[in-house]
Amino acid sequence: MPQPDTAFLDLLGARYGGAVPAAAEAPMNAVLQNLLSHRSVRAFRPDALPDGVLETLIAAAQSAPTSSNMQSWSVVAIRDPERKVRLAELAARQGFIRQAPLFLAFLADTSRLDRLGQREGQTLEGLQYLESFLVAAVDAALAAQNVVVAAESLGLGSVYVGALRNRPEEVAAELGLPPGVMAVFGLAVGVPDEQVPTAIKPRLPQSLVLHHERYEVIDEAAQVTAYDGALAAFSERQGMGAGNGWVRRMLTRVASGASLSGRDRMQGILHRLGFPLR
Amino acid sequence: MPQPDTAFLDLLGARYGGAVPAAAEAPMNAVLQNLLSHRSVRAFRPDALPDGVLETLIAAAQSAPTSSNMQSWSVVAIRDPERKVRLAELAARQGFIRQAPLFLAFLADTSRLDRLGQREGQTLEGLQYLESFLVAAVDAALAAQNVVVAAESLGLGSVYVGALRNRPEEVAAELGLPPGVMAVFGLAVGVPDEQVPTAIKPRLPQSLVLHHERYEVIDEAAQVTAYDGALAAFSERQGMGAGNGWVRRMLTRVASGASLSGRDRMQGILHRLGFPLR
Repeated sequence: MPQPDTAFLDLLGARYGGAVPAAAEAPMNAVLQNLLSHRSVRAFRPDALPDGVLETLIAAAQSAPTSSNMQSWSVVAIRDPERKVRLAELAARQGFIRQAPLFLAFLADTSRLDRLGQREGQTLEGLQYLESFLVAAVDAALAAQNVVVAAESLGLGSVYVGALRNRPEEVAAELGLPPGVMAVFGLAVGVPDEQVPTAIKPRLPQSLVLHHERYEVIDEAAQVTAYDGALAAFSERQGMGAGNGWVRRMLTRVASGASLSGRDRMQGILHRLGFPLR
Repeated sequence: MPQPDTAFLDLLGARYGGAVPAAAEAPMNAVLQNLLSHRSVRAFRPDALPDGVLETLIAAAQSAPTSSNMQSWSVVAIRDPERKVRLAELAARQGFIRQAPLFLAFLADTSRLDRLGQREGQTLEGLQYLESFLVAAVDAALAAQNVVVAAESLGLGSVYVGALRNRPEEVAAELGLPPGVMAVFGLAVGVPDEQVPTAIKPRLPQSLVLHHERYEVIDEAAQVTAYDGALAAFSERQGMGAGNGWVRRMLTRVASGASLSGRDRMQGILHRLGFPLR
């Protein structure tokens, strides 16, 4: 049986803290190294991306699986500094949106198939269901994650921007989205600013996320408490303040509709953006 | 400026047919090679996966970004042949579910945070919104796509199973899912059966998917017609029948609620599974 190499164990140690999965003995390779080394980057150098990089990232995105080959996602690449300023304003004023040379708005897009139906004289009613919105959002996510991985292989960093859902109608107006299109999240991409170090963020122990045969909750309270401590220590090492663990953050993050930064209004907004969600 | 190498251009040619994006001139590397070479695998050898592979795949999954570090997804790994038979029965009787040595059910999971709130004496109302279901489904998709990429780097193949949404309540019962958990899709994983060749499937031209600064529809009808022909030729080469292009398939796939294989009932089912979708 191949033994795990040191780099692999180091990466697992960073990801899981003390709770490295015992059986992780697969051989290491460049792709696993890339995946396991992921960290989000929120500080970018101003350098524009070289020619061809955007197209390569999108080729990686389109290489991801897509439900029934429907390809019901699209992406808007934003490089115009003024548009980035306006989008940052709509997305919780996160400064890295302005700073990153490239901001990608990933779109759940049922409008392309709707237009196809119109050209063929057919109303594609199936697009009006919650299922079709879900497929579009999942397709966009699969594509975007390939962009994250491809970007990292090219020495670039990225961070997702869920705050693009805070004010979806204004984002749709800014990007000229037709009905049946919604920006589900953004992705800021650029060369990481080495002045701002990043680190691998610890995750929940694998035993809480991975179930075998059936979903079973075992010893969750104790493991969450241990993870809370590990994340607090990580935050302190990152200069993000002491005592900032997982539990308190989570309790705040989803306490109520009001703590969702406007996203509690999404049902109604999606209807107005052309997703009836039947 | 670095010139694209032949392997890179070959992969782009397979993915886009005649419509290779002109500016794709980034340097090739092992990760891009892995991403751009993706093809879905629907025929597997019976070989069980070596020890440690599952844990490595899940470590890759947990290395994917997750919204606000909420980690509101989980996964059930199914290897029991009888359970795979029952799940295949629930998921459009797709034979490769039984055949693959590993079947992963990816779960949108708000129950872990709900349990956390209960232990802390707090009702986390934010979990009841459509936003929280969307976050959970997108988190599951980001994690799953890392599994697809990691598996391919280890010589394994995979295919997503959206049909796991055809009968979500029966899937939830089979897997013992608590309220606030839904299987959003499956992923069959195994060693590809080399007797059944696979090929890179062509996608829509990049110009239809990638927009610059604002969403603009340019020359869509002509490009879709060309793609329809390219996909029909691909299907014929793959022995999947002549004349089987993209347009007709799409018109059938989303013609109506009835063409969604039961998924038109998802709104009501999600409510019963503990997602009020406020």
